Amino acid sequence: MSERIATDATSPAHLLVVGSVAFDNVITPYGEKEHILGGAASYCSFASSYFAETRMVGVVGNDFGEEFMNRLRSRGIDLEGLQRDESGPTFFWKGKYHENFNRRDTLDLQLNVFEKFRPDLPESYRASPFVLLGNIHPALQAHVLDQLSGESFVLADTIDLWIEIERENLLNLIKRVNLFVINDSEAEELTGEKNIILAGHKLREMGPESVIIKKGEHGALLFHEEGLFALPAFPVTELRDPTGAGDSFAGALLGRLASRNRNDFTAIKESMLYATATASLTVEAFGCDRLESAGATVISERVDQLRKLMSVE
Amino acid sequence: MSERIATDATSPAHLLVVGSVAFDNVITPYGEKEHILGGAASYCSFASSYFAETRMVGVVGNDFGEEFMNRLRSRGIDLEGLQRDESGPTFFWKGKYHENFNRRDTLDLQLNVFEKFRPDLPESYRASPFVLLGNIHPALQAHVLDQLSGESFVLADTIDLWIEIERENLLNLIKRVNLFVINDSEAEELTGEKNIILAGHKLREMGPESVIIKKGEHGALLFHEEGLFALPAFPVTELRDPTGAGDSFAGALLGRLASRNRNDFTAIKESMLYATATASLTVEAFGCDRLESAGATVISERVDQLRKLMSVE
Repeated sequence: MSERIATDATSPAHLLVVGSVAFDNVITPYGEKEHILGGAASYCSFASSYFAETRMVGVVGNDFGEEFMNRLRSRGIDLEGLQRDESGPTFFWKGKYHENFNRRDTLDLQLNVFEKFRPDLPESYRASPFVLLGNIHPALQAHVLDQLSGESFVLADTIDLWIEIERENLLNLIKRVNLFVINDSEAEELTGEKNIILAGHKLREMGPESVIIKKGEHGALLFHEEGLFALPAFPVTELRDPTGAGDSFAGALLGRLASRNRNDFTAIKESMLYATATASLTVEAFGCDRLESAGATVISERVDQLRKLMSVE
Repeated sequence: MSERIATDATSPAHLLVVGSVAFDNVITPYGEKEHILGGAASYCSFASSYFAETRMVGVVGNDFGEEFMNRLRSRGIDLEGLQRDESGPTFFWKGKYHENFNRRDTLDLQLNVFEKFRPDLPESYRASPFVLLGNIHPALQAHVLDQLSGESFVLADTIDLWIEIERENLLNLIKRVNLFVINDSEAEELTGEKNIILAGHKLREMGPESVIIKKGEHGALLFHEEGLFALPAFPVTELRDPTGAGDSFAGALLGRLASRNRNDFTAIKESMLYATATASLTVEAFGCDRLESAGATVISERVDQLRKLMSVE
C-alpha cells in the first residue's frame, strides 16, 4: 500500500472515482510541456490515493503505455474499472494559460476513445460508500449513479461546457448528489446570481445537501444546512500550472471523507483543509508531477499551515 | 458617552483620525443619493467611535451645517481638530458604481476648502497613542507624523491616485508607519507583483511592520513578522453602496486596537474581525446611514458570525 495520511476511523471506507483520463499539452508563462498525464480521473485519483483506497473508472486508448499505468498503480490506485479501448488514442487536450493564469484557451481537443466512453462499473465497484463524479457529461454521471447499489455519499463536479450545452441534464444530476462542487464563475453562470453567497444558497435549493464554491486564490465556501464555512486558499507563491487543481481538490476532499468514513458538516469542513493543501501542491508544477511525488507529510504540514493562517488566537 | 463595544483593557486608549470630510453624490444600481455625509475621516471616525474615544482632524466648508456636526457629536466624536473654513464649500465628490460594484467612475470632484487643508493638530491631540492617517496626500500624512509627540501606533491608508502621482512621497511615508492598509489592486500597482502573497511580503520590505491587503468580498490578508493571517469577508447579501467600506474597516480596526490598548499580532487579528463586521454594515446602505445607526450589538453579533464562518470545529 502506498503512503497514506492517518485516519481516526476504525473502519475507513474506500471511494470510487469516475472521470476522464487524458494526455495534455500545456503552455503557461513558465514554459510548455507535452504529453502530460492528465484528465479529471487522474488528478482526482492521485489526490484521493493519499487518503483512502481508490477505485478508478475511465478509458484510455492504444497509446497509454505501461509507464502511465504504473504511475497510477504505484499510488495504489485500483484499475479494474479503467477501460482500455484499442481502437484509437487517449483523449487529448492542448491548452494555454495567459499571464495572470485567470484565463485559458483550448488550442486543440481530440476526444478519441473518450467519445464512446460509457462508465460501466465492475460488479465489485457498485457498492461504493463514497463516489466522486468527475466533470464528464452529466448523462454519464447519472449513468454511474444508476448502477450503484446501497447507500453512497456522492460528490459531483462539473465544467462550464455542461452548464452551457447540457443544463437540463446537469440540473437533473445535481438533484441526486450529496455534495456539489463548482467554481465561482460557473456558480454565477448556473444560477444567474452575481452575489456568491446568494448563488450558493440557490445551488442548494436546486437539490444537493451541500455545495462548495471554489474561488481559486481566494479560497472556497461551503454551504451546508448547518451553516456556512469560509476557507482561505493556501498561500501559493510558485504557481506553475493550474490544470487539475479543482480535480485534486475534489479527490482529496472525498478521499479524506472516505478515510474517516464520515460526511457530516464538521468532517466536510476538515476535509476542505486537506483538499486545499493537496490542490496547492498540484499547481506548483506541470501536470501531476508534484501531486504524485509530494508525499503525505507535505500535505499534513500544509494543513497545519492552513490552520495557523486561519487562527485568530 | 455614546454606546461602545466592551474592552478587556483596564486603561483603554484614544485615537486620532485624520482625513477628508466630504459631501458625496452616489449613484449605484440601486439608486442615487445626493448630499451624503462622506469622506474618509467621517467613515473612519464613525467606525472607531464604536470602540474608543475618537478625535477627528479634517476640514469642512461654509455649507457644513449644525445637522452634520451633530451627527458626528452624537457618536461622541471629539471635534476640536475639525477645522472650519468659511471661504468656500466642503469637498465634494460624485461617483457612479457599475453593475457588479467592481468599478466606479468619478463624475465630479471639487476640492473646495480641502485644497488648502493642512492637518495642524491641536496641542491636546499631539500625544495620541493610536493614529489613523486616512487616504489624503502622503505629504499631509507625513505632516501629521511630524507633529506627534511620544510613541504612537500609526495606521496609514492610501488610494491609487497617490500611487500614481506621489509615489516617492508615499514610499517615504510608509517607512514611518506601523500598519499599512491597502487594497489588492493598489498592492499590485505599488509593488508590480501580481501574486498577492508576494506583494504583501514586498510591502513589508518597504518599511511598515505590518501590512493588510483588503480583497473586498474575498476578505483580507495580514502580513506580520509573526506570520500570515487570512480573514474571510462577512457574507454580505445586500450590498447597496461600497463607499467608505475601506475607511470603516480602518476606523474599526484602529478603534478596537486603541480600546484594548494593544498592537500585537493577536490583537491585530482580532481587530480585523471587528473591522470586517463594521465595514459590512457600511455597505448595506448609502453613505454612513447604516454605520451610524447600527449600534454596538450588531457589530458584536457579526463578529460572532465571522468566528463561526471560520471555525473548522
